[in-house]
Amino acid sequence: MVEFGDMVDHFGFTLMKTFKQRYLISDKHWRKDGGSILFYTGNEGDIVWFCNNTGFMWDVAEELKAMLVFAEHRYYGESLPFGASSFKDSRHLNFLTSEQALADFAELIKHLKRTIPGAENQPVIALGGSYGGMLAAWFRMKYPHVVVGALAASAPIWQFEDLVPCEAFMKIVTTDFWKSSPGCPESIRRSWGAINRLSTAKGGLQWLTETLRLCDPLTSSDIRRLKDWISETWVNLAMVDYPYASDFLQPLPAWPIQVVCQYLKDPNVSDSLLLQNIFQALNVYYNYSGQAKCLNISETTTSNLGSLGWSYQACTEIVMPFCTNGIDDMFEPHLWNLKEFSDDCFKQWGVRPRPSWITTMYGGKNISSHSNIVFSNGELDPWSGGGVTKDITDTLVAITISEGAHHLDLRANNDFSYSGIFATVALPVRNLAFFCSISLCFQALEPSLAVHGNKERRESLSQPCT
Amino acid sequence: MVEFGDMVDHFGFTLMKTFKQRYLISDKHWRKDGGSILFYTGNEGDIVWFCNNTGFMWDVAEELKAMLVFAEHRYYGESLPFGASSFKDSRHLNFLTSEQALADFAELIKHLKRTIPGAENQPVIALGGSYGGMLAAWFRMKYPHVVVGALAASAPIWQFEDLVPCEAFMKIVTTDFWKSSPGCPESIRRSWGAINRLSTAKGGLQWLTETLRLCDPLTSSDIRRLKDWISETWVNLAMVDYPYASDFLQPLPAWPIQVVCQYLKDPNVSDSLLLQNIFQALNVYYNYSGQAKCLNISETTTSNLGSLGWSYQACTEIVMPFCTNGIDDMFEPHLWNLKEFSDDCFKQWGVRPRPSWITTMYGGKNISSHSNIVFSNGELDPWSGGGVTKDITDTLVAITISEGAHHLDLRANNDFSYSGIFATVALPVRNLAFFCSISLCFQALEPSLAVHGNKERRESLSQPCT
Repeated sequence: MVEFGDMVDHFGFTLMKTFKQRYLISDKHWRKDGGSILFYTGNEGDIVWFCNNTGFMWDVAEELKAMLVFAEHRYYGESLPFGASSFKDSRHLNFLTSEQALADFAELIKHLKRTIPGAENQPVIALGGSYGGMLAAWFRMKYPHVVVGALAASAPIWQFEDLVPCEAFMKIVTTDFWKSSPGCPESIRRSWGAINRLSTAKGGLQWLTETLRLCDPLTSSDIRRLKDWISETWVNLAMVDYPYASDFLQPLPAWPIQVVCQYLKDPNVSDSLLLQNIFQALNVYYNYSGQAKCLNISETTTSNLGSLGWSYQACTEIVMPFCTNGIDDMFEPHLWNLKEFSDDCFKQWGVRPRPSWITTMYGGKNISSHSNIVFSNGELDPWSGGGVTKDITDTLVAITISEGAHHLDLRANNDFSYSGIFATVALPVRNLAFFCSISLCFQALEPSLAVHGNKERRESLSQPCT
Repeated sequence: MVEFGDMVDHFGFTLMKTFKQRYLISDKHWRKDGGSILFYTGNEGDIVWFCNNTGFMWDVAEELKAMLVFAEHRYYGESLPFGASSFKDSRHLNFLTSEQALADFAELIKHLKRTIPGAENQPVIALGGSYGGMLAAWFRMKYPHVVVGALAASAPIWQFEDLVPCEAFMKIVTTDFWKSSPGCPESIRRSWGAINRLSTAKGGLQWLTETLRLCDPLTSSDIRRLKDWISETWVNLAMVDYPYASDFLQPLPAWPIQVVCQYLKDPNVSDSLLLQNIFQALNVYYNYSGQAKCLNISETTTSNLGSLGWSYQACTEIVMPFCTNGIDDMFEPHLWNLKEFSDDCFKQWGVRPRPSWITTMYGGKNISSHSNIVFSNGELDPWSGGGVTKDITDTLVAITISEGAHHLDLRANNDFSYSGIFATVALPVRNLAFFCSISLCFQALEPSLAVHGNKERRESLSQPCT
């Protein structure tokens, strides 16, 4: 049994239990002399999958002589504190928090610096996207002695309480569809009523099941779930509206919203034709590979994401208010109702959210005393609505990527479109590594690269993430 | 029932329990216009007692138009998360950590700003001494969005791992006694052997009991405890060697070490005369008031300090290595033995210390990216050995008080000696309040002082701390 043993509970001393935290490491381009460490603060999913979708780190590794480390977030992938029982009940889930995850990262970096000769005095830069980007930013804020800086890609650190309007997110989704053609969001907006009418018409449920090629027959109690599933599909498309064919949440063509909207240009059609068009659009997202026999309304994304763990986190500290009004956006009107949300959480997990805790802990908009964080956001990305999109100080810098979707900048450099993004984002990262290695940090380099300890769970990568 | 309900567990969501946190508040000099909030980060004891010994805050209140808040640390005084069961076992003690205490302070300040009109946008400055000083510094490091700065008085934030030599503390104690007369520490150094010899001589235990006027007859198994008790007495004298008569740990005359050392000038005396002299010296500390009928080797300080809680904290995260060699100091040689310490902790509390955690969490010596912390240390104070005694940056500033003992600067201004200290320490505090109120913070003052909510446990002070 090999493992890096991180404490299950960093913030209490009764539970004296460790767990195996998985991390990936590549030292192919690493140099003891003048090198650096790029540390991916893993988010809500399998770390191999994030590694495979973070080509940026591989692209800059040689120039920065960087060791690459991808750390898996506790309760995701294979890093389960209580193995198969980790999600059993709220007692087992009690240690799934961002604070515990950051402490894991800090302990892991201390461990690496202690055990890899030459690493001890090198600068470490945190990188992450989405929730991982929030963690990268928070890591620099709370552990500035561990990381010299952070690239927080598409990190909605302000999607809490009333720091940003709760409708911002869905408005951006809507705008993304509107850019392809104004009829597209209008078709979607009208589709909800069409579904309501069809589902209550005689034979309508069966017709909908067949038209949308659903795996399971719809009953009238499924209609809410059906509409939520369709809504989430549009949201996901906005997140992954990349300029080249990609396979992040699903295999997709370049600019997938344009492809989807080809079917939804004309909103002025009958209910039944509208829903046939909606099917064509959904089919782009769920069946671009042509392998799907039917569509399953219980799934919207890759199984690499840990939706169970995320649901718990959303029910405790990562409480993000969303709302729609059906006018400025293409969705059915929906108010943010904390009471209802809290009751649902209590039913599902036996816990209640503390919506103001993240602001207490991480400062909300009052973060100007921190330093060395690059906040990058894609203009198309709905999460940019909760992100830092303007410079706060000289060292808290915002980068906006026009026509960029969700953490596009973390993806591998791509000839078809985006070498400009690479340069823009790589520059501050390069500066962090460079300035630290010449001034803030002291290079006391050891003579040789020793054999790595084998007490840790570790996957050395010769090729990216395999 | 009145209370301010703070979460017992800020870092987990299973335990949905609050507890009554006590705090003292005075708004006598507070002004909504241009005022500020001085917030004492309570340490290991009854907050009324700390309030009574922190005259500095009362002295600057008028000038800074400051509201004074003294927050009691959880598990001390009346702020017991599980009432009488709080110390029952490690499960009940699991929430006694510095991280939980800092989160309490952050929540309390949010509560005050939310409920006291005019307070919302005022700068808050954290102040504390000793462990409370560590908390003040750590509070600014971890919650810079809550406090604009901190005065960390006599805060040994480096008394961990090998950040400073473990013998530093006892060397300073010895030097303090040496300054009175070189014979004084030499007498003390020789007293250990004398005790050993007398305790094994025929009738020696009874003689020692009578000579030291102990409340309970010594047995041979008490000798270790007796010597520890005497050692701790010398340590405490070094801490409270104030230039005027005071009553902090015990009622004492001005410069108590000088008084004590009058009895210990000559080390070249017989064992029995040496121990009679030691008694005279101990009697200064334990019986300056002349009220004590006998000396109790189970007690060394005021009962206002929560020794039980502190013992648990020392056994978990506040792991401070101390050692002596008997050559550079006046004590019996004693190595720092983590294994032995850990085993003792496990026996007493069922927990084991994590000696490197504080460094992981709070950065050890690598704290230069933080700002606005004044570290003050008394030159005579043994805790200065683990403190920050040199400037780190322009805004991490060290003040050394020559001939000052343990957080002398937090005590009330005193004509007999130390108005200079007051000016020295008050200046940066004044600057924090001033610069923040004109630039960093935005003064959006509400029109009137509303009635304070009565759901909180709160003691309003007309006179200091009564």
